[in-house]
Amino acid sequence: MGADRNVTPRKPALWITGKKEIFERVQTARLLNHTIRLVPTMGNLHEGHASLCRQAAEETSFVIATIFVNPIQFGPKEDFAAYPRTPEEDRELCARSGVDLIFAPNVETMYPADSCTRVQVSETEKPLCGRHRPGHFIGVATVLSKLFHLIPADIAFFGLKDYQQCLVIERMVEDLDFPLKIRKCPIVREPDGLAMSSRNRYLNPEERGQAVILKRSLDLATRLLQQGERDAGRLRQAMIDEIASAPLGRLDYAEILDAQSLASIDRVDRSAVAALAVHFGKARLIDNALLNPM
Amino acid sequence: MGADRNVTPRKPALWITGKKEIFERVQTARLLNHTIRLVPTMGNLHEGHASLCRQAAEETSFVIATIFVNPIQFGPKEDFAAYPRTPEEDRELCARSGVDLIFAPNVETMYPADSCTRVQVSETEKPLCGRHRPGHFIGVATVLSKLFHLIPADIAFFGLKDYQQCLVIERMVEDLDFPLKIRKCPIVREPDGLAMSSRNRYLNPEERGQAVILKRSLDLATRLLQQGERDAGRLRQAMIDEIASAPLGRLDYAEILDAQSLASIDRVDRSAVAALAVHFGKARLIDNALLNPM
Repeated sequence: MGADRNVTPRKPALWITGKKEIFERVQTARLLNHTIRLVPTMGNLHEGHASLCRQAAEETSFVIATIFVNPIQFGPKEDFAAYPRTPEEDRELCARSGVDLIFAPNVETMYPADSCTRVQVSETEKPLCGRHRPGHFIGVATVLSKLFHLIPADIAFFGLKDYQQCLVIERMVEDLDFPLKIRKCPIVREPDGLAMSSRNRYLNPEERGQAVILKRSLDLATRLLQQGERDAGRLRQAMIDEIASAPLGRLDYAEILDAQSLASIDRVDRSAVAALAVHFGKARLIDNALLNPM
Repeated sequence: MGADRNVTPRKPALWITGKKEIFERVQTARLLNHTIRLVPTMGNLHEGHASLCRQAAEETSFVIATIFVNPIQFGPKEDFAAYPRTPEEDRELCARSGVDLIFAPNVETMYPADSCTRVQVSETEKPLCGRHRPGHFIGVATVLSKLFHLIPADIAFFGLKDYQQCLVIERMVEDLDFPLKIRKCPIVREPDGLAMSSRNRYLNPEERGQAVILKRSLDLATRLLQQGERDAGRLRQAMIDEIASAPLGRLDYAEILDAQSLASIDRVDRSAVAALAVHFGKARLIDNALLNPM
């Protein structure tokens, strides 16, 4: 249980679908003095997820990955039905990444017919994906409230690719006094710079080739900042122009916001985040970079 | 610690205002194998609250009462500022009702300036007080989410005078998988039948005399049901007419709804609830009765 942490394949992680069983397993692990570490995912795991799991897997920890494609965080025209589901591969990746147990409930378990409670992080959810995907973060905050209760963890791990999601979750945990810590982990990228994402598999080869423009656009903003540019509008326009150089890309948003509050800023005088969402064919890709003026 | 459970006065219950301290105290009590029992209140405690505390106080239990006048469950024109605050008397009542510890945070502790997360139980909150006090149950659900995290209890106790509140809380606990049980406790009444409430102290003697009309109206509906009346509209009208016989009363609502879903019903063919809200001067009083057809 969390002792042998290497990357060689080992026996598959335990696969649990019931609420009662997962709760009891966690209680048992806690009684055995393990710290409980949670990696919530929607499955179709890639090296970004594996990186989260490996960071969670320390000597005394009991690592639980959840795999649940959460319907209420998808809009009616979004890709809930098409979202890739690869349980066998996920289980293997978990096994070689230090996961002890996988919780993979079905939709009826998580949302019985009369379920009607929602959690909303009203300020943090407003800009970026919150504006472009109405209701998305209500779905995220609600499902995580449930998972944090079913799996009373000490630390939950999230990837910084979903930057706004990280802030929404941190805000929720602080506002509602959840007794757990949030660990935000660095973005994991393909060799050419594209941020790892389950949605990358929607890309055809031509789209895949051009999708690196998100990272290039963020790198451009970082470079301009280093050269002294502080005007948020000009930095943003430079990102937009860079994205436009990829003919298959359709910009959803490009913003430069305060890194903590996500408030609009005119100048980058303190830590800011450059955040992008760009459609390529069926895929909507997001990426971001912190902009720290010296 | 929960051992000596009689109604004679004893030393005052511990009074705690900080989040960290309350959480640690609860962890300690849990390590000592106490079951944690929570009685959330807004203070100005009366025999209704005392009854909840006494029901919570069993041999192995550690009883925590919370006293917090929760600003976000009051509307802008409601009585947040005027709501009675009687900490000394509350402490004495707790001491003689088996309470081990009182958690009484201030508003800034519970709602720092950047706090923005809210919990909404959308269906259950719609009728009755939810319609007449917009946002009220969002405030209730949010503060209880926080208290349930700060004080990870096994059971939380609530009075059935706030019938809809009980349903909202039960729904929230089930929907969000909170690991605690809700115990709904009978309404405690004055000798003439008026349901105990902190707001009764707003009544002048004349209003106090007439306020018994709520209970009489509910008794009338119960009697008519026993006599065979099943038509919800006629039962409701009988309640309204009865309330009208108290000249100082101003009806807020009188409803007969499904006892579980709070859906509108035409006939009382299964368990229903008769629910009333009536203004007397500055006081808005609520009361209810279950209607069970034989």
